[in-house]
Amino acid sequence: MRVEIWSDIACPWCYVGKARFDKALAAFPHRDQVEVVHRSFELDPGRAKGDVQPVIAMLTKKYGMSAAQAQAGEDNLGAQAAAEGLEYRTRDRDHGSTFDMHRLLHLAKEHGRQDALIQVLYTANFAEERSVFTEGDERLVELAVAAGLDADDARGVLADPDAYAEEVRADEREAARLGASGVPFFVLDRTYGVSGAQPSEVFEQALAQAWGERSPLTLIDQGDADACGPEGCAVPQR
Amino acid sequence: MRVEIWSDIACPWCYVGKARFDKALAAFPHRDQVEVVHRSFELDPGRAKGDVQPVIAMLTKKYGMSAAQAQAGEDNLGAQAAAEGLEYRTRDRDHGSTFDMHRLLHLAKEHGRQDALIQVLYTANFAEERSVFTEGDERLVELAVAAGLDADDARGVLADPDAYAEEVRADEREAARLGASGVPFFVLDRTYGVSGAQPSEVFEQALAQAWGERSPLTLIDQGDADACGPEGCAVPQR
Repeated sequence: MRVEIWSDIACPWCYVGKARFDKALAAFPHRDQVEVVHRSFELDPGRAKGDVQPVIAMLTKKYGMSAAQAQAGEDNLGAQAAAEGLEYRTRDRDHGSTFDMHRLLHLAKEHGRQDALIQVLYTANFAEERSVFTEGDERLVELAVAAGLDADDARGVLADPDAYAEEVRADEREAARLGASGVPFFVLDRTYGVSGAQPSEVFEQALAQAWGERSPLTLIDQGDADACGPEGCAVPQR
Repeated sequence: MRVEIWSDIACPWCYVGKARFDKALAAFPHRDQVEVVHRSFELDPGRAKGDVQPVIAMLTKKYGMSAAQAQAGEDNLGAQAAAEGLEYRTRDRDHGSTFDMHRLLHLAKEHGRQDALIQVLYTANFAEERSVFTEGDERLVELAVAAGLDADDARGVLADPDAYAEEVRADEREAARLGASGVPFFVLDRTYGVSGAQPSEVFEQALAQAWGERSPLTLIDQGDADACGPEGCAVPQR
């Protein structure tokens, strides 16, 4: 079974939702047969790479909240994160473009390190004092290396703005096609969807349901198949 | 869209069917959004690593064919391969265990080199004079390197019989669950199946059909989702 998770590094609910999903997955009896794929979704796709501002300032400017309202939201998210055992820095976090991080996540996918990298990026963005947005590419290289990637591979991707750019856009188009307007968005075997940071129990139910209802295949052209089996290979009929 | 292909390196129809599928995929307008995954299926899972014999001898012994019948089958397969532009060595090929090659294909998956490796292995087994079964692990290392893998990574997998062994077995269990008793077996988005080396036109039709009918998701728990979207992050309701 395959679970695809659309998310953004700048999305607090993705950070919390991932922990809730992981808890459900760890308790799932068939977890060894579940493949998790991370898909790109930028909450703020138009933001330029160097355009960084404090989260609270972004919230007040973009959504017309008061600074107190914005801070209350952050504190609330901090409490939700803490309930999942996650650190969450509620003060002075930055907001910026996550496009390069998504490109690195596609590099990581090719090396089987995607889940490791998204975890490293979440921790760096939500729990650590240092900003993931203001220290330049070498900070991202450092995080990629912490996730097991090769430093030069990561540098190469960051130096070439086209590297994996189309893969990020393709994920985002696919999210729109599947009806995901927000993240996190979980898709199980392209059959079931779970929207948002639902409680672990919902993910447990979704995993069990999708597993139990894995649909039989519709065979296309059941005519004379030239195939090999334990009893040998068919002789061509055509 | 995802296409999973169950096959064995020792399966001539898999070699031919892969070429037919590739032709259909190359003509498919949405090919950039198609992910191909190779899955393991051993035609002869009980064969020991060192147990190598000529294909013709295997066919006469295992299936009670005459040597002439077995050779006619090989010649026929050679003609089918040639029709796809593939070289096929109809004389003196060997048969042996493909378990280690499947383990290497799982390593290759982690490095985005799976399609390259299966192609290299097919060519080595079906078109080249040298045997892939009798020259020891270093021959497989050489082929892995030709597909872009790291030699030491490949050596490490070959030296450890448990490396990716469970992944191979899991693929084989999944094939049985999906009703595949022979290979090649193609599965499109876990919805449509195509059994055997069908003509390219069948694969074209299958790709178009699976693409057109990509099913909408069933959402589990549509209640209050804690999610972030372009308009900001939901405030917890719980």
